[in-house]
Amino acid sequence: MDSSLIKVRAPATSANLGAGFDTLGMALSLYNIVTVKQTLPPGEFISEVTGEGARELTDAKSNLVIKSYLDACGAWKIENPHGFEMHSNNVIPLSRGLGSSATAVVTGVLIARELNKIKAPETEMLRVMTRIEGQPDNVAPCFLGGMTVGCWDGNDLKYVRLPSLPSDMYVVVAVPDVKVKTSDARNSLPDVVNFGDAVFNLGRAALMAAAWATGQWDMLSWGMDDRLHQRYRAKLFPGGDVIMDRVRSIPGCLGAAISGSGPSVLALSRGRPRKLAEAMCRTFSEHGVDSLFFVLEGNAGGARIEAVL
Amino acid sequence: MDSSLIKVRAPATSANLGAGFDTLGMALSLYNIVTVKQTLPPGEFISEVTGEGARELTDAKSNLVIKSYLDACGAWKIENPHGFEMHSNNVIPLSRGLGSSATAVVTGVLIARELNKIKAPETEMLRVMTRIEGQPDNVAPCFLGGMTVGCWDGNDLKYVRLPSLPSDMYVVVAVPDVKVKTSDARNSLPDVVNFGDAVFNLGRAALMAAAWATGQWDMLSWGMDDRLHQRYRAKLFPGGDVIMDRVRSIPGCLGAAISGSGPSVLALSRGRPRKLAEAMCRTFSEHGVDSLFFVLEGNAGGARIEAVL
Repeated sequence: MDSSLIKVRAPATSANLGAGFDTLGMALSLYNIVTVKQTLPPGEFISEVTGEGARELTDAKSNLVIKSYLDACGAWKIENPHGFEMHSNNVIPLSRGLGSSATAVVTGVLIARELNKIKAPETEMLRVMTRIEGQPDNVAPCFLGGMTVGCWDGNDLKYVRLPSLPSDMYVVVAVPDVKVKTSDARNSLPDVVNFGDAVFNLGRAALMAAAWATGQWDMLSWGMDDRLHQRYRAKLFPGGDVIMDRVRSIPGCLGAAISGSGPSVLALSRGRPRKLAEAMCRTFSEHGVDSLFFVLEGNAGGARIEAVL
Repeated sequence: MDSSLIKVRAPATSANLGAGFDTLGMALSLYNIVTVKQTLPPGEFISEVTGEGARELTDAKSNLVIKSYLDACGAWKIENPHGFEMHSNNVIPLSRGLGSSATAVVTGVLIARELNKIKAPETEMLRVMTRIEGQPDNVAPCFLGGMTVGCWDGNDLKYVRLPSLPSDMYVVVAVPDVKVKTSDARNSLPDVVNFGDAVFNLGRAALMAAAWATGQWDMLSWGMDDRLHQRYRAKLFPGGDVIMDRVRSIPGCLGAAISGSGPSVLALSRGRPRKLAEAMCRTFSEHGVDSLFFVLEGNAGGARIEAVL
């Protein structure tokens, strides 16, 4: 075994964007970096974490990067895959709806490809990632970058990467200091919905995809409207029931949505992103919650191997 | 009053395309032509019809072109709008899910604009048309041509016209000799649907829009899949429950859907459209129904004034 060093950079993502539940997701220019030393025998892993999750993610056996690595090796029928020592430098907040688990999955699969010299085309990579994650809405933009439409039928995957946002558009993400478990967020959703609400969302999701594909950004506010999931999830964190209406009323805001299953809130802005960010953090503050915000590029690249030494 | 002659050509349309209930629609290269003589005083109309509807559509008072003309004049606050003598040459089958009523609406609004020298931008025209028709999914492609995504909130409208199909793609439409009333088709739909089915459709509708916008035609079969409406409407006409699966299994078929609220069935084809058409008509025949088929361009233009003499 040689002692190669692999460095993977993988972005945060916002999924479930507005009408596009389980389907639309975008990469955010906020990256976790994982460095791997291929120095351990099969089955042996050492995980060191700095930044987000430094306390929670130290157990190598339950580390999602390592689990995903092993899952990918299994999918590619690699016998006795190498162990390794790994260092994660995490800046993506955990359990905030910013796709940190998808980042780990994508990173693990990329490490498996590199360490085992697998030649897998993009679609195959994404299929393996989606099978591990359960749906494509975070892993697709994390792997491909930008905005993606992804559909998964449990076995096969279809996806489209949409064009980049113009350089004068920003993504503002406010992250309150509360966590929402994905399982709680899932359980908050109803079993059945009105036919009209289902039609509302499919129309808005199609409009969002079409508007994004053709650069008609003034339509995003319609595309990010939703009647299926956000009304329930907004109740799971303080200020959730008012923050989006408040943000949408600020000039320059092109649309707002709960990021992933929350509690982070995302707004798209043409110019003046700071006002949006301040309004979001002020809303959280009025509801007794600290928050931080990120002003990010609307054109983040996908996960990539930064160095193989 | 001068004696100008206006000739309007307006295409058939297929709405509710697969997952895109009430949202996605495409123009078909099958055109009704209406010729108008501006020779009558306000309130007086004479309607002559040849072709489809020659028996049903003779009463000027209930003629949808004339009603739409008057509605549009009302929307534009035209006092005492001219009457006219009109001749309709109809080739679009009635009550078959091919948008013949939208064709009448679009034609009536175009006549109102021409006769009254209204300067209305495209969006305003389409808003008036949508208000008359009740939803944009047929009038948008009828007016704009091609494939459109349209959303209507009862007052305002957002729409995107998607790029044209490549010239080697065909649209095959089979039209059985039975009628489905739009009201029966509406009543066949459920009040509530499973959350998962709603998510399925919004994902497929977004994929359809994104795939169409970026020319990834091999994804249309997924985009045209649906769990909200077709299973109910397929029961309203003979052979409906088997025809789409049968068509989709034929090589070259890129997707199949009920056109509008049925009973016509549409398939997208790359090459060899005749095999698809024959399979569709044979299915109807096996279920005791005569049918005819059209092989149409996937790139039909929108409604237009052909001549003002």
